[in-house]
Amino acid sequence: MEDKMIESGTLDSRDFDAEVKEIIELVTERRYSKVRSMLLEKNAVDVAEILEETEEELGLDREILIFRMLPKDMSADVFPFLSEDNQVDIINGITQKETDQIINELAFDDMIDLLEELPANIVDKILVKTTKEERSLINTFLNYPENSAGSLMTIDYVHLKRDMTVAESLQHIKDVGEDAETIYSCYVIGEGRRLIGVVSLRNLVMSDPDTAVSTIMRSDVMSVSVLTDQEEVSNMFRKYGIIAMPVVDREGRLVGIITVDDILEVIDDETTEDFQRMAGVTGDSDDEYLEMSVWRHVRTRLPWLFILMCSYMITGGIISGFEDMLSEYISLVTYMPMLMGTGGNSGSQSSTLIIRALATEDVQISDALRVLWKEARIGILVGLCLSALNSLRIIYIDHDTAGVALTVCGAMFIIVMIAKCVGAMLPILAKAVHIDPALMAGPVVSSLTDMMSLGIYFVFASIVLGI
Amino acid sequence: MEDKMIESGTLDSRDFDAEVKEIIELVTERRYSKVRSMLLEKNAVDVAEILEETEEELGLDREILIFRMLPKDMSADVFPFLSEDNQVDIINGITQKETDQIINELAFDDMIDLLEELPANIVDKILVKTTKEERSLINTFLNYPENSAGSLMTIDYVHLKRDMTVAESLQHIKDVGEDAETIYSCYVIGEGRRLIGVVSLRNLVMSDPDTAVSTIMRSDVMSVSVLTDQEEVSNMFRKYGIIAMPVVDREGRLVGIITVDDILEVIDDETTEDFQRMAGVTGDSDDEYLEMSVWRHVRTRLPWLFILMCSYMITGGIISGFEDMLSEYISLVTYMPMLMGTGGNSGSQSSTLIIRALATEDVQISDALRVLWKEARIGILVGLCLSALNSLRIIYIDHDTAGVALTVCGAMFIIVMIAKCVGAMLPILAKAVHIDPALMAGPVVSSLTDMMSLGIYFVFASIVLGI
Repeated sequence: MEDKMIESGTLDSRDFDAEVKEIIELVTERRYSKVRSMLLEKNAVDVAEILEETEEELGLDREILIFRMLPKDMSADVFPFLSEDNQVDIINGITQKETDQIINELAFDDMIDLLEELPANIVDKILVKTTKEERSLINTFLNYPENSAGSLMTIDYVHLKRDMTVAESLQHIKDVGEDAETIYSCYVIGEGRRLIGVVSLRNLVMSDPDTAVSTIMRSDVMSVSVLTDQEEVSNMFRKYGIIAMPVVDREGRLVGIITVDDILEVIDDETTEDFQRMAGVTGDSDDEYLEMSVWRHVRTRLPWLFILMCSYMITGGIISGFEDMLSEYISLVTYMPMLMGTGGNSGSQSSTLIIRALATEDVQISDALRVLWKEARIGILVGLCLSALNSLRIIYIDHDTAGVALTVCGAMFIIVMIAKCVGAMLPILAKAVHIDPALMAGPVVSSLTDMMSLGIYFVFASIVLGI
Repeated sequence: MEDKMIESGTLDSRDFDAEVKEIIELVTERRYSKVRSMLLEKNAVDVAEILEETEEELGLDREILIFRMLPKDMSADVFPFLSEDNQVDIINGITQKETDQIINELAFDDMIDLLEELPANIVDKILVKTTKEERSLINTFLNYPENSAGSLMTIDYVHLKRDMTVAESLQHIKDVGEDAETIYSCYVIGEGRRLIGVVSLRNLVMSDPDTAVSTIMRSDVMSVSVLTDQEEVSNMFRKYGIIAMPVVDREGRLVGIITVDDILEVIDDETTEDFQRMAGVTGDSDDEYLEMSVWRHVRTRLPWLFILMCSYMITGGIISGFEDMLSEYISLVTYMPMLMGTGGNSGSQSSTLIIRALATEDVQISDALRVLWKEARIGILVGLCLSALNSLRIIYIDHDTAGVALTVCGAMFIIVMIAKCVGAMLPILAKAVHIDPALMAGPVVSSLTDMMSLGIYFVFASIVLGI
């Protein structure tokens, strides 16, 4: 969370853009000392942005030059906010000694993130100075499953002992807090590093110096296991409005903490992942849209488009089966897109709402029947309204026969109702069999309902029109 | 943020469900003192959940009974976490004196939230004891536009004066911090309450007691205006990983702060809103899916379904215009759903990705041409692949003529390419004219591409087949 740097920055994004331009100009004019003094006033996130802008406008050499001008601790702050490409370029561009200095200053969780992302030769350059013990710890962290609490946590936390007083605790925080990710939640550990309590800096500051920590700590500490999924962790942050969460191993020993700033990123990533899955885009890519190559975009989009395209062979087969009827009543074709489209839209509405409700835990798998009952009633009402409006249009605008109107509107009613139920049930069903519900969104639902819509439509037509 | 209660709770949701059951059982057996002692160990969020469960299982009377058994400060903590219905029921079920006690203990921003939501008669009961000044302040807050920083902020913050020392500041925090939403960020104000700096509790604790606050404060404070949109505020929290943000009025005077727990809720609401809009569901409802009545669901879903259904009149018109051709080549109808579906899916992929990229600010309006160029190339590659695979199928599986294969695959290529470009441009265009980009998602895009797909398909067919 880096409590140290959290409260400064730039207010207005237009001001910021103007400043970036000014700095780039100063770099062009080689007025580096002015550039340096301007950067010193900025926070790490903004400096990283300015460096990337410099690289884009003036090339890598200038970026490395400016990066090297920054004070050591600032360059370590800035480094994690650079894009992967820029990180690799900079590590390649600076000396081993400079690399060591940066790595030395990095927060532990930022280092783990780097090691997970960067190519092997860079990793070697980074790890050259670490001790055997550090390497073993790093390895443990790298082995936590992706998206687990273990892969999110940091070891830079403050822990207290139960027999400390408030004054001793505050002194301890003063001594060791410099490197901690946060000092606002301090964890009290007992024998064998077992987590036995938590005390907030707030409580420490508000309490009498002679009070024992054990009397003001909360002993019913909320914690998660290293293997807890990050989505569950972020739901707990959201539900309880907390700023830090301790992580324990199987034996209840404190091994790390997760802070709210990491959770903001997790929520972001999880939402983006939901959007990608809902769009039928494969591969969990954290990369930004514009940074991904055309080829990678193609690779992520083709699979679902292909699968769904193939599913339309069935739909085509249904049509082939009714070709004689269609030749006779060619006007039936006119209403095909409307029925398929409205069915798809009705189903997408329900599936999207349920996907979201499942993500926020407003709806659980056990609510399946309640949801079905609700959607069935919604489907009946929506279907009735749309059918009624549509029959007026067919008779008074299209001047088609009552038979066609009855066919189209009858089919519409059934299609909407079933689409609503199917759209709502698919995500719940997916969750029940441990598939991501977000996959059951627009594309899949509309391909399925297209098939169903045509079947219902044609069967209905053959009955009403007596073919 | 309620730093006071942030670190306790229950680890495992299964354990929690079991405990809730146990408590409900104890209530049924009227063993209230045991219930009370169990609740005292829980945090406010969980107690609220247990109360609501009690109401559902055993009725309102029991819920109110248990609520009244809670200590005063706890009932004020729990109250904001109850659902609106429960809040109204409880205020109606308790005495004016009890109401006053709860209101007295409420955080200012929670009170404002209540006043915004609850019916007028309840609001009167709540405001009965407030002074004229308080009412005027409350009115100012109620008048901030919905979704503005002003409507999110709280006045319960700690402010320091520039000439205080660290020791004086810590003493001041001890004196006034009890009611503050957070004491981790303290704001330094100058003449006329103008915000001139910020100092974190971390810095205060880590600094020498005799240091002057003005020497350790950061004077380049990040702040937002009362009118800043909440989405922009939450993007700043996300970008900079901060836990609190000061809010200033037009004259730069400090009027409130926003804390990260409120931002977690904002992010949640904004994402849900995006999902609703993408599903073509109207009305910004913060209510949970299961809590909304069938009628309200119908009202939110009908408008877009109806508008899109009407748009299919144009699609129907296109088909009518080509009825003669279709009668002659009825097998062309077979491929209609596949072309429309694949076009819709291709467009939805692009629009969904761009909607998300706009929300996370990875893509800006000014990137429009870069996006278009990228999507055009993606569209060409994806279109080529799908067309090639499809032509094989038409010739070798469907045994259709080369003419039909050429028509279908030629149309497919053009449709996919245009759908990708249109799908990606619509959200950016929407943003440029200040419409929510999320509206340009699946339903709208597929209705549009359906129209376009048929037009392209038929024109292509009439050229290739020489009709």
